[in-house]
Amino acid sequence: MSLEALRREVGAVNDLLCASGILVWDSRTMMPPGGVESRGHQIATLTEAARERLLSSMTRKALDAAEAEVQGRPEDSAERREVAAVREAIEFHARIPADLIRRKAELRPKANVTWIEARKKNDFSIFAPHLSETIDLQRAYADAIGYASHPYDALLSLYEPGESVTSIRGFFDSLRPALRSIRTAAEARGAVRTDFMGRAFPAEAQRRFGERIAERFGYDLGRGRLDFTVHPFEISFTRSDVRITMCRAETFEPPAIFGAFHEVGHGLYEQNVDPAYTRTALASDLKQLYAVGGTSFGAHESQSRLWENHVGRSRPFWDLHFADLRQAFAPSLDDVDAEAFHRAVTRVRPGLIRTDADELNYDLHIMLRVEIEADLIGGSLDVGDIPEAWNAAMTRDLGLTPPGDADGCLQDIHWSSGMFGSFCTYMIGNVMSAQLFETAMTENALADAFGRGDYGPLHDWLKSHVWQHGRRFTRDEVLARATGRGLDVEPYIGHLTARYAEA
Amino acid sequence: MSLEALRREVGAVNDLLCASGILVWDSRTMMPPGGVESRGHQIATLTEAARERLLSSMTRKALDAAEAEVQGRPEDSAERREVAAVREAIEFHARIPADLIRRKAELRPKANVTWIEARKKNDFSIFAPHLSETIDLQRAYADAIGYASHPYDALLSLYEPGESVTSIRGFFDSLRPALRSIRTAAEARGAVRTDFMGRAFPAEAQRRFGERIAERFGYDLGRGRLDFTVHPFEISFTRSDVRITMCRAETFEPPAIFGAFHEVGHGLYEQNVDPAYTRTALASDLKQLYAVGGTSFGAHESQSRLWENHVGRSRPFWDLHFADLRQAFAPSLDDVDAEAFHRAVTRVRPGLIRTDADELNYDLHIMLRVEIEADLIGGSLDVGDIPEAWNAAMTRDLGLTPPGDADGCLQDIHWSSGMFGSFCTYMIGNVMSAQLFETAMTENALADAFGRGDYGPLHDWLKSHVWQHGRRFTRDEVLARATGRGLDVEPYIGHLTARYAEA
Repeated sequence: MSLEALRREVGAVNDLLCASGILVWDSRTMMPPGGVESRGHQIATLTEAARERLLSSMTRKALDAAEAEVQGRPEDSAERREVAAVREAIEFHARIPADLIRRKAELRPKANVTWIEARKKNDFSIFAPHLSETIDLQRAYADAIGYASHPYDALLSLYEPGESVTSIRGFFDSLRPALRSIRTAAEARGAVRTDFMGRAFPAEAQRRFGERIAERFGYDLGRGRLDFTVHPFEISFTRSDVRITMCRAETFEPPAIFGAFHEVGHGLYEQNVDPAYTRTALASDLKQLYAVGGTSFGAHESQSRLWENHVGRSRPFWDLHFADLRQAFAPSLDDVDAEAFHRAVTRVRPGLIRTDADELNYDLHIMLRVEIEADLIGGSLDVGDIPEAWNAAMTRDLGLTPPGDADGCLQDIHWSSGMFGSFCTYMIGNVMSAQLFETAMTENALADAFGRGDYGPLHDWLKSHVWQHGRRFTRDEVLARATGRGLDVEPYIGHLTARYAEA
Repeated sequence: MSLEALRREVGAVNDLLCASGILVWDSRTMMPPGGVESRGHQIATLTEAARERLLSSMTRKALDAAEAEVQGRPEDSAERREVAAVREAIEFHARIPADLIRRKAELRPKANVTWIEARKKNDFSIFAPHLSETIDLQRAYADAIGYASHPYDALLSLYEPGESVTSIRGFFDSLRPALRSIRTAAEARGAVRTDFMGRAFPAEAQRRFGERIAERFGYDLGRGRLDFTVHPFEISFTRSDVRITMCRAETFEPPAIFGAFHEVGHGLYEQNVDPAYTRTALASDLKQLYAVGGTSFGAHESQSRLWENHVGRSRPFWDLHFADLRQAFAPSLDDVDAEAFHRAVTRVRPGLIRTDADELNYDLHIMLRVEIEADLIGGSLDVGDIPEAWNAAMTRDLGLTPPGDADGCLQDIHWSSGMFGSFCTYMIGNVMSAQLFETAMTENALADAFGRGDYGPLHDWLKSHVWQHGRRFTRDEVLARATGRGLDVEPYIGHLTARYAEA
């Protein structure tokens, strides 16, 4: 009965967070331009109401009773973990001063506006004052959250619990040499034909193709939908309503279809969380206050990258589905075959922009951002010195020097949104996707089915080993249960080697 | 400062109500079928959160202080009315037992399911038990709200404040003889050509035409949008985001375009409420707990009917715009002219179904429902006797006997949704639309512009006399300020006579 009372309160919190999510989705897909200001008020009120409900005396009382009720169960039982997540979130929010939340919320839209202006004018100095303020607030936020050795650790914990500056630097060090040598080998390969990438691929046909593949991957359109947006994203309002978007492109640059595969991966995770967890703390991030069933940003990204890169960019996939693609976009691919297409969509193309990067160069982009973020939050890098530090790192790591700030340190939206600590999760996702995919493919029947274009067994393996658990297990617990070990870079190095250094 | 504190609280209430509205809109236009159950939880939580925030000690304290602050201002000043609306709503909710709210909310989906089944099986007895329960709860609700002479008065007050069983019966009596005689005259007129109504009118072209006319009427698509739904509706999330829908039809039956004109009228009201009232009690129905700027259901309907019937079904309108319509749907109207089209869309066609009824027969449908509702709530009619009472009234008033319950007493969704007391507002809207339109057209420059297809002056007249005031003035105050008198049936009788009995 006590757990039931707690679930009633957390259920209402989840409802408010889902409602906020629906308003966010609507604002990016459907809302007329006039709605902006009111929508800001509405989302702020919902977040505040969710936080108040979570911290209410009713929730706290129910939590005390629920803790007593579940204490006899195993530590990793769903009920114990569910109750512990509520306790942890309540203690977390109790540490954050209301004034800090207000100042962060007020700064965000202002910082966003100056970031847009700075990017347009290719001038970092326009954004610098608001970025300085943002970093001051992020430091204060880190202090309020608490940390053992580095303030950036506190921010990392929001996105990838368990990671720290030290662990992330070790993780990078374990990958950097391999990335460099694979890159050298890849650059020695011959040129790839890409002339057809700019031909006509009508957006609506790309969406239909994306939907067909989404259904093949097991994404349930009866509990989801696929729309166009400028920036693709996935968002869930419980497992019963998980929506994805793709960008509207009339050519294959930018690759709208691979963006769709990516979001499908995120969507599969959310759609397949255990129904019993619906509206509970195992399907809500009660610290960051949004509805999500995935256990960490990195774990979530592992699913999007798995379906995008290990399935959707695999040679067997295009051997099977290229004919369908060619037919859907006739005559644009009439003089292309599966091999040529596969080469084009897996080619290495070093560039200045993270979101355009291939699998290999993507990680180099990530590492330099994480270093800069950690130094900024730690205080060893001043905001005014960002452009120089950025350009030096780009030249060193990618051999490219940005001609201006717009294509350099102003390219990502994260800092203007007050998002510090999330970049490393993209790379953790890459590594985790390879580790899970490699393990799944050791099952012969699953690998055989995969080779025939039957993705059901892979879907079921991931559901059983990852998705269904929602936020019950940590990322490393998920990995250990699925693969017998914690995060391991070797399968990822193997994957990149096979894709870029061989053949 | 005190009014400001009250506005902060009511602003948050309005945000929650708008959020709920967005979830409702989404559930009818975009939501995948799987989302139904979660969506129910989410909307219920938002409504409950809005009610709690309204009744919180913070709001009450701010209200006490705000009342003291505004007491020196005129009774009909916006500030006095705004504060009074909050007081009235708080006192209203304090009278409604939480248990009754819960029971009503729990019954609604069950009643809705049995209503759908009963309608499908053409068998009222399937719905009767849940309808009996609904009526018991509605009576308890009326008792909680309070009333002077008839329990139905309490329910009427929710939709059309100031009306009672006595006043509505008087209103009906003042119209019934005229409606009968106009109907007799109309039936004596010759047959109207309607063969072209069933030809191809592609839905997407209807939507585009609807949008063009919406913009001509002054509906701002930058603060709105027009989508397809099974049942058309208008909904607002502050004046900055007011959405309308139309039904998707591939012919002119059902008339999707006139439905769009209707919803545009509702939308114009909401888009033109004084910006100063945004997020206040003058743009929220704090009793029924939803975000709306119009002052009563009848007043709102007057605007939809005005643009649908007095503008959109007028002969001058089609003399001006028929060429555009003919071109948009070529070749379906190539052998039709404005006169023939106008005759077809204003023809009298008695039928069993309210929502298909023409202007004249519509009121007969309404009166019969209101009488049955009042008798049910008053206790002089038993649920089991509804089919007989319904069929007898239909035979008496419309000369038609329903072949079964599906086309009879099961046709409307209202009762299964726990909506009792709203039907009369459709007829009040008809009467009020004629009264306002007649007064507006006494201004020569406005009438001249109207004849030229320039609807700007009519738009501005309505904005100044009706829309901008939001919920500041009652319906009769709006009418008195705009037309010098309260609700008056004569202009409506004149309008129906001109349309149906003459020519």
